[in-house]
Amino acid sequence: MACYRFPATIVAPRASRHRIRAQKPSISHPKRLFSAASSARFGWDDVLRVGEGNQEDDDPSDLRGYFEKVWACNRGSQEKQSEFVPFLVEDQIVGYIHKGFIEHLRKFQDVFTVVSGKNGCGIGDCVSLHSSLKKPDDRTRAVGHVIKCIGKLIPGIRNELYPVTSSFGMPIFFSLERAAAPYFGIKAYGVHMNGYVERDGQQFLWLGKRSNMKPTFPGMLDHLVAGGLPHGITCKENLMKECEEEAGIPRSISNNAISVGAISYIDIDKYKYKRDVLFCYDLKLPAGFIPKNEDGEVDSFRLVPVGHVANIIRRTEFFKPNCSIVIIDFLFRHGYISPDDHGYLELLQSLRSGDWS
Amino acid sequence: MACYRFPATIVAPRASRHRIRAQKPSISHPKRLFSAASSARFGWDDVLRVGEGNQEDDDPSDLRGYFEKVWACNRGSQEKQSEFVPFLVEDQIVGYIHKGFIEHLRKFQDVFTVVSGKNGCGIGDCVSLHSSLKKPDDRTRAVGHVIKCIGKLIPGIRNELYPVTSSFGMPIFFSLERAAAPYFGIKAYGVHMNGYVERDGQQFLWLGKRSNMKPTFPGMLDHLVAGGLPHGITCKENLMKECEEEAGIPRSISNNAISVGAISYIDIDKYKYKRDVLFCYDLKLPAGFIPKNEDGEVDSFRLVPVGHVANIIRRTEFFKPNCSIVIIDFLFRHGYISPDDHGYLELLQSLRSGDWS
Repeated sequence: MACYRFPATIVAPRASRHRIRAQKPSISHPKRLFSAASSARFGWDDVLRVGEGNQEDDDPSDLRGYFEKVWACNRGSQEKQSEFVPFLVEDQIVGYIHKGFIEHLRKFQDVFTVVSGKNGCGIGDCVSLHSSLKKPDDRTRAVGHVIKCIGKLIPGIRNELYPVTSSFGMPIFFSLERAAAPYFGIKAYGVHMNGYVERDGQQFLWLGKRSNMKPTFPGMLDHLVAGGLPHGITCKENLMKECEEEAGIPRSISNNAISVGAISYIDIDKYKYKRDVLFCYDLKLPAGFIPKNEDGEVDSFRLVPVGHVANIIRRTEFFKPNCSIVIIDFLFRHGYISPDDHGYLELLQSLRSGDWS
Repeated sequence: MACYRFPATIVAPRASRHRIRAQKPSISHPKRLFSAASSARFGWDDVLRVGEGNQEDDDPSDLRGYFEKVWACNRGSQEKQSEFVPFLVEDQIVGYIHKGFIEHLRKFQDVFTVVSGKNGCGIGDCVSLHSSLKKPDDRTRAVGHVIKCIGKLIPGIRNELYPVTSSFGMPIFFSLERAAAPYFGIKAYGVHMNGYVERDGQQFLWLGKRSNMKPTFPGMLDHLVAGGLPHGITCKENLMKECEEEAGIPRSISNNAISVGAISYIDIDKYKYKRDVLFCYDLKLPAGFIPKNEDGEVDSFRLVPVGHVANIIRRTEFFKPNCSIVIIDFLFRHGYISPDDHGYLELLQSLRSGDWS
């Protein structure tokens, strides 16, 4: 069971580091009851109970439970960042690779060129593609071959390609297996959607519980629809596709989804350097609509009052971490977090702690 | 008439500087027709015509008209920032004062202490309050006296006090005349509200046209309600007060306003260093509600389709600059700006370019 600790600093890797002072540093937080270790073993009964209950010592204006969820997606200290070197394509930084991981790439000298700072890279040590790989397709094939060869190092191969660019909407240098993206520190983009219902002036969010068979975060909570953004498809088109596959939402309804902003984070975990930007959408669903998963990735859905969802996020680690941030963004935009709550501005800013371009 | 120019760089003083590439740098922009110089001389007919019209060469997915409005609120180059020195109270930076303005403060040696870097300030030149001024009330009185004495330098005295703190919600060191806040580089907070109506699935925004008698931005466009945040009142309470005074919105309706986030900017103009954070609210109004100004600050109101408001912002300089940013934030949250538009992430991030705490 994770030990509850209130860190004094929010890690905001690229922007300034924001300081949030604890008003009640010794508070006994209900999260103790539902730690990361037990997250995959809960059922809907647990979810609904923890959402509903009024707990002693639990103040809804205490934002620390939210801060923890943001920190969980931003485990990137400067010390950890220094273990990575830039990955360059056409002289532009497209990612970051761990020095330990580079050792596995060294033997593929016809694909990767490892340059030490002394030898003229200009920005210290760096990795680039071999100068013979000039065309995107050639690069995609060559890097894909390496990933196959070192497959054991990269679990959960998806056979889904992510575009490698300097920033969103810019020309694509090559495409990379989705599961490998964090090992090369590639910026990855996704579309995430909160589906909600309004009844008698009260708002409810549709939550999904991930299939226990999912390779990542099995059994944990999701918002209604989410997906990575592959090459060659617009955000809205990709969202509508995911709406159909993940929740059985017909295009006549998903067409009403509206873009509402974006969140970002940088997360470093051993060899993985995740730089994610998630485009957020809201979809107001008809009161009678029932989602139905079509691709086997979701076990079941429940409709939960938004105030209860807020409690679940603050009190537990039931949600897949990046989904928490997308829902916290929803809570901000729909008035569930008040400017008069201590730490409001810091929490709002922390939702965009990532590499933003 | 201002000459249309497309700057290559968004100035984002504290965060990273974002670069947005012009896709059509030579585009002939309709804004030429409605520049800052003519802003105060337009009528509602001009506003409605420019909002409705489909103009040749004007692409709604071209975000440059929005970027310009953000830049207009963020005129703070590093060169300009170097003309200011920190203003410290109790060893914490609470503001920044122009070196030229300091010369006017030097003669008030019992109130301000000007320290050169050589004499042990630790952070280079700085200004602090005289060590005898230990209590907030004493500081407020002493600084207030100075402001009266140098009144001609600070136009538009409001007789309204702003709290001086290190960050929002922290203890107050003293209070300062609102009009003087930018001359001391004090962080200032405000509440800004978009009032909207939904009819047959279409959204409309209530716009106000400022009285021609206002000392600041006479005759320009506003969103429905806005006000500075003085000492000793919560954001929501202040908003409800402003709703009543500025638009005749009874508390039974304004109580439904929801907080939706915040925007920020840093603007440097000669001696003034504005560091503003605006808490944003949305209020969905009953379709039949008609706003009515009670304090003489608004000339008249009009209900305008949101798509037309977007056109007005992109094409003209009719809006008071910081109101443009609050409405651009509304456009993001309500799906009027698409993630597939070139520059989406940069524009979204630029809405929070200020000193964020």
